[in-house]
Amino acid sequence: MSGVFMDQSVEIICVGNELLIGKTLNTNAQWLTKRITTLGLTTRRITVVGDNIDEISCAINEAIQRSPSFLLTTGGLGPTFDDKTLEGLAKALGRRIEVNEEALNMVKEKYLSYVQEGRIEVAELTPHRVKMAKLPEGATPLYNPVGTAPAVVAEHENVTIIALPGVPSEMKSIFDESVASVLKKAARNVTFFETSIEATKVIESDMAPLIEKVMHSNPHVYIKSHPKGAERVPRIEFHLSTTAKDSSTARKHVSKALIQLTELIQEKGGKIKPVKSETLGD
Amino acid sequence: MSGVFMDQSVEIICVGNELLIGKTLNTNAQWLTKRITTLGLTTRRITVVGDNIDEISCAINEAIQRSPSFLLTTGGLGPTFDDKTLEGLAKALGRRIEVNEEALNMVKEKYLSYVQEGRIEVAELTPHRVKMAKLPEGATPLYNPVGTAPAVVAEHENVTIIALPGVPSEMKSIFDESVASVLKKAARNVTFFETSIEATKVIESDMAPLIEKVMHSNPHVYIKSHPKGAERVPRIEFHLSTTAKDSSTARKHVSKALIQLTELIQEKGGKIKPVKSETLGD
Repeated sequence: MSGVFMDQSVEIICVGNELLIGKTLNTNAQWLTKRITTLGLTTRRITVVGDNIDEISCAINEAIQRSPSFLLTTGGLGPTFDDKTLEGLAKALGRRIEVNEEALNMVKEKYLSYVQEGRIEVAELTPHRVKMAKLPEGATPLYNPVGTAPAVVAEHENVTIIALPGVPSEMKSIFDESVASVLKKAARNVTFFETSIEATKVIESDMAPLIEKVMHSNPHVYIKSHPKGAERVPRIEFHLSTTAKDSSTARKHVSKALIQLTELIQEKGGKIKPVKSETLGD
Repeated sequence: MSGVFMDQSVEIICVGNELLIGKTLNTNAQWLTKRITTLGLTTRRITVVGDNIDEISCAINEAIQRSPSFLLTTGGLGPTFDDKTLEGLAKALGRRIEVNEEALNMVKEKYLSYVQEGRIEVAELTPHRVKMAKLPEGATPLYNPVGTAPAVVAEHENVTIIALPGVPSEMKSIFDESVASVLKKAARNVTFFETSIEATKVIESDMAPLIEKVMHSNPHVYIKSHPKGAERVPRIEFHLSTTAKDSSTARKHVSKALIQLTELIQEKGGKIKPVKSETLGD
């Protein structure tokens, strides 16, 4: 990434054995990082660890030492024994874990509503239900509009840590309702812009020096080539992206680079077609 | 994971800005880790970093310090300026990067075959093509049956590091032809076995203590619950997995736990259906 305007970095830690055994495809990480990027921030690292307090706590500590502005975690907030993210977070921060009254009220209200809707019979706060309201001291809950377990926010050494659930619908709704606005503010109105073209009849090793040439005369634009499979007719996607203070500048920068790249591909005998519509980050 | 028989651990590092901006869904990580798991090894961590020598080198160094048996990387082996995995690897290992004759021959043969097939006109070894044969000293290339860039193997502090390409078809073919057999041997004939059932009309916080009960009397079996969305009729997937020295033991352990869990779900008023066929790791 051209880092010129992107000083707000983010790390993501995804917690779950299901990700480590390959049972689950990590669509959460892609969804989150796409949103982070379009909001104008830069994701520097994504880490996946299992449902293990030490692994979670180590990964969180390592991330904090790299001083991102934000650290988002997904997974491990539910009622079962292997939902261990908040214990791992407490360990990483050197804080005790304790029942948070605000979180407990959120959980209590949820079960009362489930009884009213006829989904369950008893709203009793069993130990496994109370578990979802046990937060590291000093942390605050974020309301979960879709599921039961609240998300959790903690500040530590200038890093804002936000623990989101792993169920995609819950993660997305909390992100949209409570997290996106905070990230957007931190990004200071930076705009991310990207587009792609696809070329056939050229190969990547021949295009490599030409990409360098275009990037040299367009220092704000990042160009990455993606060979598509191994076919008899070579096919390469070229992805162009930039960040700028406003969307017209971003578009202008990418357009200029795109025109130059297109000409060079055609000079090499390549044929071009667009592959997807533009994405603008605001 | 029940770690009883799983002493051979693996880490995966995926390199690519496209993963960090959310352009690309990380299907490579899922494919690799599923294969690693079914071969009888345990993936302990998956890390995603961008096309940056320092980020790659730091992530590799950190992984080596955790002493996995194997460290697999994907991406960053191609001819363009931002294919930086081998430079990052060399930096992490404190080795120089140099043209490897065996790798150079592989690359040369590839371009000659592309000329014969009419895909390109000249097989000349340009600097960008030679780049794919520049390996950390002491490393060895693995033949790429599908694409051009060879994969790379290096040994360091008892960790076997294998750098694979990021193009899925290339990564998969090299893994199947050259890597799987090495991992399988290291796993010492351990078998991974998994199955799932789905239950409706029970909620996760009520099932949590019952899962603990079943796992307590089936210490070799790991059970994880996955709530499916937020529906009016609650739906939970229960995933049971184990590792054992042979497949009949693995099946026996899971079957016993499955029967107990099924009875407990039904006692709670839940309705059960199977969600997928069993997977056996050999």
